[in-house]
This record gives sequence, structure tokens and C-alpha cells, in this order.
Amino acid sequence: MADFVNIAKQFTEFYYNQFDIDRKQLAPLYRDNSMLTFESASVAGTAGIVEKLSSLPFQQVKHQVSTLDAQPSGDAGGILILVTGALLVDEEQRSMNYSQAFQLLPDGQGSYFIFNDIFKLVFG
Amino acid sequence: MADFVNIAKQFTEFYYNQFDIDRKQLAPLYRDNSMLTFESASVAGTAGIVEKLSSLPFQQVKHQVSTLDAQPSGDAGGILILVTGALLVDEEQRSMNYSQAFQLLPDGQGSYFIFNDIFKLVFG
Repeated sequence: MADFVNIAKQFTEFYYNQFDIDRKQLAPLYRDNSMLTFESASVAGTAGIVEKLSSLPFQQVKHQVSTLDAQPSGDAGGILILVTGALLVDEEQRSMNYSQAFQLLPDGQGSYFIFNDIFKLVFG
Repeated sequence: MADFVNIAKQFTEFYYNQFDIDRKQLAPLYRDNSMLTFESASVAGTAGIVEKLSSLPFQQVKHQVSTLDAQPSGDAGGILILVTGALLVDEEQRSMNYSQAFQLLPDGQGSYFIFNDIFKLVFG
């Protein structure tokens, strides 16, 4: 029953680890019909998404996941994930809170790709 | 193009308004295959969801939406929504931050219902 939870955890761990090491290498996790909304700016497609992520104005970044919840997202075998966490960039001493929603879809080869990706910093 | 954004805004405005007035009346927005994960406790189906929401340990509640982002969530015409906001309950002076992810699906009658609902308080 909770298999989707394990998949969600493994996927996000891999994603944030890769993001923090070298976010230019995230292309294999997206497809040409994927969407990213990062701080309310939306791009679509692998190339546009990786370009957007690569151009973010920081060099070093470290994601720290606080909570992760997941649900099956439909008949196609997708998984909806809500992550809350903290982000530390470059020389900043204080982390920023963020929330991120992913919808993963099966890639037909036993793995998953990111179809929906919405990232938002949380202030206050 | 941005029609899903308007639908997302109208839907969540209606949802939070109804939640804050009388959350027992939210049943028409769910279906028997809907899922709610509220602070990491999961329930499924309209009856279970409304029972869970009704049993939350507060009487008065006021949601205040800070940000809303939306994306189309698949071929079925769904909409994925990420809300960040603040919640004020009962006599508390300080609001709590929350994040909430919804997936809306078309109900076949020109409207939408909530298929996925993940609510999480954000601390720190």
C-alpha cells in the first residue's frame, strides 16, 4: 500500500541530492511535456526547465527536507508529493523555508519522471 | 491559456470560504475516490474526509492565502494547485503557516472535484 511513499522518498532524495551537486544534470528527470513553476515563473519542457534551474542566482545550494507526504495521483500510476523544507544558498547564514509539489508519472520503463513541479519559498 | 489559473483561484476561494464558514459542508467537493492527507494522516472517500475535517480540534478557523500556483496536471483535464498561506484558529493570536496541494479533476458536469488534498503546517 505504501509503495508510493517509498518511491516518493527515494525520488525526492535523488532529486535534491542531484540538484545540490549539479542541477544542470537534472534533465533525465523531466520530459518535454513537463512543467516547472519556480517562484511563480512557469517554463515547460526539459530544455527550458534545466535552463531555468541552471540560471538561478546562486552557486551553492543545500536542500533539507522537513516533511514529505505522498498520494497516488490517478489511474496512470502517478504520485503526488508535497515537500516542506529549508534551503541554504551560498554564504547565507539563514535558511529559507520552501514548499514544493511534484507529480511523478511512470516512464514506462520501471522508473518515474517529473510531470509537474511547483516550487515556492515560504516567508513569515 | 491561463484558464486553469482562474479555475484554481475560484475553486480555492470557494473551498476556504466554505471551510471557514462550515467545513461539514465540504462533502460536495470530494468524491469516493478522493484522498486527504492532513498533517500526515491519510483518509479516503467523501465520508472519511468530511469526518476528518469535522473532527479537527478547533471551532473557528480563518484561512488566508498568500500564494497560489497552478499547472495542468494531465490528459484528463486536471489541475494541480500549490497554496501557501496562514491559518488562524479560535482564540490564538498568532497564525500558523501552511502549505496545501490540491489536484482537481473535472466532474464531467462542467465543474471540478478534489481528487488529491495534502495539507501541512509549516514551522520554523
